[in-house]
Amino acid sequence: MTHRLDDAGYRAAVVDLLGLLACGELAAFSRLAGDAELAPTMAERARMAGLAVAEYDHYRLLSDALVERGADPETAMATFAAHYATFHERTRPSTWLEGVVKAYVGDGIATDFYREVAAYVDPATRALIERALEDEERTGFLVTVARDAMQADPVLAGRAALWARRLMGEALTQAQAVAVERESLTELLAGTYGGPGADLAELGRMFGRLTDAHVERMARLGFTA
Amino acid sequence: MTHRLDDAGYRAAVVDLLGLLACGELAAFSRLAGDAELAPTMAERARMAGLAVAEYDHYRLLSDALVERGADPETAMATFAAHYATFHERTRPSTWLEGVVKAYVGDGIATDFYREVAAYVDPATRALIERALEDEERTGFLVTVARDAMQADPVLAGRAALWARRLMGEALTQAQAVAVERESLTELLAGTYGGPGADLAELGRMFGRLTDAHVERMARLGFTA
Repeated sequence: MTHRLDDAGYRAAVVDLLGLLACGELAAFSRLAGDAELAPTMAERARMAGLAVAEYDHYRLLSDALVERGADPETAMATFAAHYATFHERTRPSTWLEGVVKAYVGDGIATDFYREVAAYVDPATRALIERALEDEERTGFLVTVARDAMQADPVLAGRAALWARRLMGEALTQAQAVAVERESLTELLAGTYGGPGADLAELGRMFGRLTDAHVERMARLGFTA
Repeated sequence: MTHRLDDAGYRAAVVDLLGLLACGELAAFSRLAGDAELAPTMAERARMAGLAVAEYDHYRLLSDALVERGADPETAMATFAAHYATFHERTRPSTWLEGVVKAYVGDGIATDFYREVAAYVDPATRALIERALEDEERTGFLVTVARDAMQADPVLAGRAALWARRLMGEALTQAQAVAVERESLTELLAGTYGGPGADLAELGRMFGRLTDAHVERMARLGFTA
């Protein structure tokens, strides 16, 4: 079943989804830029700043896509700003290591989730979202930095594992809040506007895949999830 | 008189200059990214974030140039980090308007100064520095935002004028501290390594040009300097 591209409901749902993503990228830019200042060396600070810049570029891509779809990016993003602000307020890193773990684990959860959701939109929008989620070689850098920091200090490592679990919890809380508030996004997943629709069993499998990926990331850091 | 490009003293002075600039761009990235969060609208926040990204791109350009010249960017920047940190610590904007005025007035002073210094290095390095100082249409945006904010609130305008004067004072303080600490940079201006050299009269004229440009920027904001 193909998407009803001319359906006003579908178009509004896509604008919501792109607004949610764009808002997330801009928020991630701010947080990574801020966390870069916690870096112990100028080289790591510059590297983290580079990750922030990549998020900004993704924001631009999504913002342009909103304009192409006749939407005002600011309006599309406005609804979601409070959710990201709350998430980042509750997960503000107090050390460089926490910032690095957040950039890896937190952005990893978000990326996986948006990739799953991309399966429910038309091919052009899906390709755009996948482009906005490209992360190139960032994870390698983050994992190396985090592992090195923790090897040097087992107490830090213990705290970082708790921190990573808290990130998952806060991400789920905000995702649920968004779902409750924006029916359009849940309708998108349910296939209301054409395209594939997920039943409860499929949503369960999606959640399973997200959890598996989180566990795998935790393992790469040497944590159990 | 041409530059003695094979002179170790000259090469060290150029590395110092590029390190100073690179460090300034990375510091400016952090500050503009942070100040973007003070923006009253998502559109202005995104625009300010875009200015931060432009500073990061300039940092990359300078960092690559240091590598090309056989220098380690981190080492070249390290000496100057404290000066920029002190400057930004003493001029931390507490409002969006202060951030905008700082981005315009503060970066304007720095850009003018580095353009003047670029006259004293070899043509290839000069072209690089000029490329790293390109500011495109940023000033138009900043002036419009600042003027709109001040028109709406005369009390804000009075405070912003004092703020802009303080930025100039703090910039001069740090510039002097760097000059005292790094003889290589004053030698560069004096023509010690070949190339044009400035005598006291020329340094006086340079200072005059920098002041004139500052007065002009203040006037564009509706301030007297």
